Amino acid sequence: MPSGAGEKPREDCGIIGIYGVQRAAELVYAGLHALQHRGQESAGIVASDGARIHSRKGLGLLSEAIDRHELHDLCGHIAVGHVRYSTTGAKRVQNIQPLVTEYSRGITVIAHNGNLTNARALRRLYQSHGSIFQTSTDSEIIVHLLADPQHDKAPDPLASALGRVEGAYSLVLMDASNLVAARDPHGFRPLSLGALEDGYVVASETCALDLLGAEFIRDVGPGEIIEFGEGRPNSRYLGRRDGNRLAHCIFEHIYFARPDSVVFGETVHNVRRRLGENLASACPVDADVVCPVPDSGDCAALGYCHRSGIPLGRGFVRNHYIGRTFITPAEESRSFGVKMKLNVVRDVVAGKRVIVVDDSIVRGTTCKARIHTLREAGARQVHLRISAPPIRFPCFYGIDFPHAGELIAAEKSVEEIRRFLGIDSLGYQSVEGLLAAVPTSRDSYCLACFTGEYPVEVSEDMGKYAMETGRRAYDESR
Amino acid sequence: MPSGAGEKPREDCGIIGIYGVQRAAELVYAGLHALQHRGQESAGIVASDGARIHSRKGLGLLSEAIDRHELHDLCGHIAVGHVRYSTTGAKRVQNIQPLVTEYSRGITVIAHNGNLTNARALRRLYQSHGSIFQTSTDSEIIVHLLADPQHDKAPDPLASALGRVEGAYSLVLMDASNLVAARDPHGFRPLSLGALEDGYVVASETCALDLLGAEFIRDVGPGEIIEFGEGRPNSRYLGRRDGNRLAHCIFEHIYFARPDSVVFGETVHNVRRRLGENLASACPVDADVVCPVPDSGDCAALGYCHRSGIPLGRGFVRNHYIGRTFITPAEESRSFGVKMKLNVVRDVVAGKRVIVVDDSIVRGTTCKARIHTLREAGARQVHLRISAPPIRFPCFYGIDFPHAGELIAAEKSVEEIRRFLGIDSLGYQSVEGLLAAVPTSRDSYCLACFTGEYPVEVSEDMGKYAMETGRRAYDESR
Amino acid sequence: MPSGAGEKPREDCGIIGIYGVQRAAELVYAGLHALQHRGQESAGIVASDGARIHSRKGLGLLSEAIDRHELHDLCGHIAVGHVRYSTTGAKRVQNIQPLVTEYSRGITVIAHNGNLTNARALRRLYQSHGSIFQTSTDSEIIVHLLADPQHDKAPDPLASALGRVEGAYSLVLMDASNLVAARDPHGFRPLSLGALEDGYVVASETCALDLLGAEFIRDVGPGEIIEFGEGRPNSRYLGRRDGNRLAHCIFEHIYFARPDSVVFGETVHNVRRRLGENLASACPVDADVVCPVPDSGDCAALGYCHRSGIPLGRGFVRNHYIGRTFITPAEESRSFGVKMKLNVVRDVVAGKRVIVVDDSIVRGTTCKARIHTLREAGARQVHLRISAPPIRFPCFYGIDFPHAGELIAAEKSVEEIRRFLGIDSLGYQSVEGLLAAVPTSRDSYCLACFTGEYPVEVSEDMGKYAMETGRRAYDESR
Amino acid sequence: MPSGAGEKPREDCGIIGIYGVQRAAELVYAGLHALQHRGQESAGIVASDGARIHSRKGLGLLSEAIDRHELHDLCGHIAVGHVRYSTTGAKRVQNIQPLVTEYSRGITVIAHNGNLTNARALRRLYQSHGSIFQTSTDSEIIVHLLADPQHDKAPDPLASALGRVEGAYSLVLMDASNLVAARDPHGFRPLSLGALEDGYVVASETCALDLLGAEFIRDVGPGEIIEFGEGRPNSRYLGRRDGNRLAHCIFEHIYFARPDSVVFGETVHNVRRRLGENLASACPVDADVVCPVPDSGDCAALGYCHRSGIPLGRGFVRNHYIGRTFITPAEESRSFGVKMKLNVVRDVVAGKRVIVVDDSIVRGTTCKARIHTLREAGARQVHLRISAPPIRFPCFYGIDFPHAGELIAAEKSVEEIRRFLGIDSLGYQSVEGLLAAVPTSRDSYCLACFTGEYPVEVSEDMGKYAMETGRRAYDESR
Repeated sequence: MPSGAGEKPREDCGIIGIYGVQRAAELVYAGLHALQHRGQESAGIVASDGARIHSRKGLGLLSEAIDRHELHDLCGHIAVGHVRYSTTGAKRVQNIQPLVTEYSRGITVIAHNGNLTNARALRRLYQSHGSIFQTSTDSEIIVHLLADPQHDKAPDPLASALGRVEGAYSLVLMDASNLVAARDPHGFRPLSLGALEDGYVVASETCALDLLGAEFIRDVGPGEIIEFGEGRPNSRYLGRRDGNRLAHCIFEHIYFARPDSVVFGETVHNVRRRLGENLASACPVDADVVCPVPDSGDCAALGYCHRSGIPLGRGFVRNHYIGRTFITPAEESRSFGVKMKLNVVRDVVAGKRVIVVDDSIVRGTTCKARIHTLREAGARQVHLRISAPPIRFPCFYGIDFPHAGELIAAEKSVEEIRRFLGIDSLGYQSVEGLLAAVPTSRDSYCLACFTGEYPVEVSEDMGKYAMETGRRAYDESR
Repeated sequence: MPSGAGEKPREDCGIIGIYGVQRAAELVYAGLHALQHRGQESAGIVASDGARIHSRKGLGLLSEAIDRHELHDLCGHIAVGHVRYSTTGAKRVQNIQPLVTEYSRGITVIAHNGNLTNARALRRLYQSHGSIFQTSTDSEIIVHLLADPQHDKAPDPLASALGRVEGAYSLVLMDASNLVAARDPHGFRPLSLGALEDGYVVASETCALDLLGAEFIRDVGPGEIIEFGEGRPNSRYLGRRDGNRLAHCIFEHIYFARPDSVVFGETVHNVRRRLGENLASACPVDADVVCPVPDSGDCAALGYCHRSGIPLGRGFVRNHYIGRTFITPAEESRSFGVKMKLNVVRDVVAGKRVIVVDDSIVRGTTCKARIHTLREAGARQVHLRISAPPIRFPCFYGIDFPHAGELIAAEKSVEEIRRFLGIDSLGYQSVEGLLAAVPTSRDSYCLACFTGEYPVEVSEDMGKYAMETGRRAYDESR
Repeated sequence: MPSGAGEKPREDCGIIGIYGVQRAAELVYAGLHALQHRGQESAGIVASDGARIHSRKGLGLLSEAIDRHELHDLCGHIAVGHVRYSTTGAKRVQNIQPLVTEYSRGITVIAHNGNLTNARALRRLYQSHGSIFQTSTDSEIIVHLLADPQHDKAPDPLASALGRVEGAYSLVLMDASNLVAARDPHGFRPLSLGALEDGYVVASETCALDLLGAEFIRDVGPGEIIEFGEGRPNSRYLGRRDGNRLAHCIFEHIYFARPDSVVFGETVHNVRRRLGENLASACPVDADVVCPVPDSGDCAALGYCHRSGIPLGRGFVRNHYIGRTFITPAEESRSFGVKMKLNVVRDVVAGKRVIVVDDSIVRGTTCKARIHTLREAGARQVHLRISAPPIRFPCFYGIDFPHAGELIAAEKSVEEIRRFLGIDSLGYQSVEGLLAAVPTSRDSYCLACFTGEYPVEVSEDMGKYAMETGRRAYDESR
Repeated sequence: MPSGAGEKPREDCGIIGIYGVQRAAELVYAGLHALQHRGQESAGIVASDGARIHSRKGLGLLSEAIDRHELHDLCGHIAVGHVRYSTTGAKRVQNIQPLVTEYSRGITVIAHNGNLTNARALRRLYQSHGSIFQTSTDSEIIVHLLADPQHDKAPDPLASALGRVEGAYSLVLMDASNLVAARDPHGFRPLSLGALEDGYVVASETCALDLLGAEFIRDVGPGEIIEFGEGRPNSRYLGRRDGNRLAHCIFEHIYFARPDSVVFGETVHNVRRRLGENLASACPVDADVVCPVPDSGDCAALGYCHRSGIPLGRGFVRNHYIGRTFITPAEESRSFGVKMKLNVVRDVVAGKRVIVVDDSIVRGTTCKARIHTLREAGARQVHLRISAPPIRFPCFYGIDFPHAGELIAAEKSVEEIRRFLGIDSLGYQSVEGLLAAVPTSRDSYCLACFTGEYPVEVSEDMGKYAMETGRRAYDESR
């Protein structure tokens, strides 16, 4: 679960769709609340009563983006919602999802999680045909495909369109009278299906189902398209149902998903706990106390303690009100910012040999600042244990890691990182230790950020297109 | 000048573009302030420093939509801005202009005033080719044309694209390094060109030039395209320069433009004053006092008094704070709403024969409520004089009149309207009286709302497309 | 009516009280809307259902200060409201009225308009007794008097307390079950009584009664106390009913009140029109056009035209959206600020001999800037006519004039002012001309700002106390 | 640390004062951020540069109440700040602290934490003398005492005034040139003193000192008054320095303070951990997993695990975004509200014997709902362990417990509570177990909520005065 802003990797979004329930938009609102950890930049809800489509969108947290007094305008039994991740930079009104578009078939609404790897090529292709783009979202590319007469006239336009798409997507689409859920054949991003008393819900994580009191049915399968309309849901598959190279994003287990969600067949908490156990076996060290970085290291620390027998201590305390508080320029030192979020409990660490457990290191700067506060508080030794392997490669399927050049493990050896951080020892999870903790086999996962083996080919010009690198070429806010 | 919400006709927008001035976005902000009467629903500014494009957009008045603290982020010497008119219904975030898009040539920004008459046909055409639409603005259609390889590859892509467009448009376009202004060959909507110390400004009305201290050079000509870049502005024309059937919107003289603006070659105040004079000559009546409806009837009332010799009285007083104040459901009677905006000065009208001067009657309901308050205040006789002819036909070039069925003069004779309003006499301007007051000849104007003679053919399925009639099919807010 | 921020004199407040009407707070809200011109800094409403007292308060315009969704919490048949004037400086949350206090008798709510002249002495007196003050309002002093056992134990505590107060006050008080209106024996500030279907309303101006559809009964008399509770309203008087030296603030006629209000027995519009007539008789000049400064000079200009026979012209056009728009530091020149509010209609003034009519000159700087824009627009001659006499003395009864040192007419002769403004002639109203325009005799008015004759003695240390000069010693905002 | 809204006890406030540091208000802002857990209803900061006093106040979290852009207006080297606790009901603008008042000595600013037990009597006393009250805060009473000539003329007015006050207070006072910190002789509420590079800080908890990088010097002593001005801080004591009956609020150890703060001589985390250990010894049970209620049970659970040898599990997961999200009426069931905040990790508890550790039970309703979600998730047995003894008596010194009638332990036996909650066993901490965990002896603490022995006499009419029970008699919001 994300620990707020900072150097953590960020994922694209959380999505949810509801079919067949009175006032579906209110359930979507509650469900987005449960998925808020997947995106804090913007939120949107679109609903239909079978004839009319209404929407509300805005920047910020769900509660800021959508005035709850306005929910009653979003009437109808079909609704989709989206939360988008937060960047430190500018926020684009145009990018707020769900995306509402009109093409020859009428109005289509789409909410999407994941990154397409041939987005740039498709974008160029359609631009060369004269198409225009107004957002930097992959949702827009999918709608261009849907609208393309080549696909629009196919027997199964959606399957035909998705057949051209490569990379990661979990998505919900709706028009005035139907809801559709779809997931890429590799199953990169999670998507779960649940039953409500009178209808259905699909959501990025099962924690949204739990909040709504929905019964978890199963995951939407890799390559599956489920259509909700009159009668029973209709399921079909892209290509062969079982022949796909699966590529579940293993970082969902490690960091993204909420610990209470069941992702890729296993409760996230359990996987993280086993990661901690494996880490303790592989990188033991004699110490006095195990301190997780809250909340990202919490579950793994439990496992580490269990396996090592070293007691847990709450050496870091989190300030829950960090969200909106400013830091004055004078105080912008990394150390002050770190203290705004986490304070050290001196007595827990002073004079002690401390094992710090966290899920990952990205740039290393925040981590270094935290180590510094531990030292200030008198920790005698600091041993850092990371429940994931070193992140050495960028992600092209939806995780907003920094450029490879900024990934500390892409540039430095473990020993160099240890020296950079100024700690007594540093232990990373091995890829094998990681795989031993997850519910299925190696070939079901995408491990590219650790191994550099990309399960879906990435075009050479991958990277973002002009409107996205918008930080350079374009920056539209509000 | 609009008197706020109510039954007044509404126009699309105000636009402005600045080239060659440091911190152009700040001038655009000030200019939009001067154009605020042309649109209160949303505002947007996009700026470029020659390399990077930044924007800010939002719903509401300029001051609500764009935080002035954020203007300093909009750096650069090129900027365009837009204010959009206010509807009582839902407001769509997606429709906020300027529209920022990317197509094969890169990023293009467009701000547009006016309505295309073949918008629906073009929209259908492009949808049949597979294009998708995200807004209900005509700007989006223009970008689709620009992006169409057929035009994009033409020697003059903009001219080629605009050659396909019918109807009304005054627009500014920019990319990272250039600004372009263009106006339809009929010259429906105004667009003025001014010189700043180091650069240029184009704006919907000269009142924006005045506020910026710009020197008015001339109007952008009908069919003219002016390109601002390195060196001197470059001007060219669509088709023949002088062969176009001009069709200036005569309602700009009557109501839309600010009285201090010079529109179509004449100060608006002067035209309105002459309208009042002509009205007095054509529809004289013996009375004690002439009371304008503020502010829309102010200038014409001056002329009416001057010609008739009947003294002016301020029988109506306007509350300047109406803007944001609510009306509780219990108080929603038309009469209360009218009083919130205008109160009657009893002594001015009690026992008097009162001539009320206003610019137009649309539905007639607000007008009737105002008459009622005059009667309550003891007016002995009420004579209504309207400085425009009866509005009998809808506008397809950018004025948001209600459907013909709701236009009182489309349904009723003048005598029937008089009885409906419960007044002693009703006098409208004649079309001849109107033409006698304006600076150029009949064939320079569009008089369609009065005569039904549409200078540019309107396709049979004119009316709005699905996303716009959105009130029925789609309503996206915030 | 105030023309917004600027150099205009500012008055303290508008007040309203309602008794005996279901959902009284909603009527108070509407009434405050009509009184908004009397104060834009803050607004507050307090209501009681006979047992429980609820309130809402906030900074800014009524619509900003109080969320209309919250009005339904302010239940009950008794309510009072207050709007407070806007200063350019800091705004104090603590000063928002109505003031809710508890003393030995229970909870008392008070809303007050006017300035006490012995406020400082009373404040010192009570401070010397150990009392504490939390606001810089005179309302607080009145409550200290009410709470003083010396008055609290009197047969008529309110009369006893008000007997100690000197200066100007129109006020409404309420507790859980009663409403009281009171006005100082000199009748400085207006206060009107009206009948609603089931109850009563008292308000600063009759325009609030008009909006509520209340029937105007009469003014609350100078020195009168009216108590509203079960049964018929009960009226009594402070001291002798008729022996008081009346001292109506003549500036209510000239500038403060809305033209549609009946103040001190006469419609404001009529008085102002006569002021213009008298001015034309006393200060004639040969000219082409009479241009009022909107809106403050509008009524007087009508009279000026009528008497002089010179036609009215709308040489200045007001931007209705000035309220919230910023001025960048670079543009802070007075001239730019003036143009943001008022633009000149060139054709009306170019080459003309222009008579400008306004109600008053305070500092003269804004006036000078306006003259400058007229000259820029080509006015051949500029003749300024002011419908009030020169303001030479500060007001201690509730008008926020600047220090005498900043009053241009306190320092300069009329000829010196003329030269300072750079105009061709300057004509002020004489005191006699002023008195000839108002409904009652000289000895009914306070003319102190013109004559220096203060009808109620002002203690030598008058001026504001520490918390108020807070600009120097204390400044509490929000 | 509070887990947000809900049934948790609430304390009054957090306070901070800074002396001798440039831009003291910015440090106060950061310090209040660290103290935000002590109050979320409102925040205020007052600063002085030695001559002028400025302030900013508002409702909501610190970041909502005070715009950081406005901090630069709060110049000067002295500043005090206050955060106030959040109630579910109405919020009164008037109650926002620090309280700024003027009395005979000039302007005094006060921020206060704690409840006076003779507040009502003093309020009545001063009301009988004619004083008025505008807030329901005890700060106002203290200022009335200070302003009372009887104290004001004493050699040490502050000591004289505080000598009349009974109950709990930690407070900071400032005038234009001095800062004073004071704490009641019983030392109910914490108050710590720290050294900054050039000055001093006093704050409710040391976590604020840590964030500012201040060096912790010592607690402000019970009965101590420290004056900060030119030269070294000056300390004096109320009455005898060491003869007071100490009465530290033991709930600061149990729940209020942040775990990283040092309170009453001991790090909070350590005390809570020992509470868990003692609880494990006293109330052992055979079980599979120990699940803390986050965050209130976190530290005690560590101790419970350590002593019992039963492993820790994260059976509850907290949603960090609960703060501002609504609950629709349809969803207002307690169970939905509980899930919005905490979700159960099914795998951790399903089929398990679960020990739930929390700090306290107040009403029992939220607790019951949580147990219910555990049962739904399949917990085989649920054993609840509470690290504090049963709360049986109301607090009159600053904790906002509900009325005794609503305290479940005041009405029910432990066995009855167990049955009410539907759990397999319930174990409370004993008072002895509690005392064994805290740093000093029984007679240093107030244990009244557990034992009913009130260390400072409570007047029979204790309870809140009219303005506070305002929920009944008065409710002023915003």
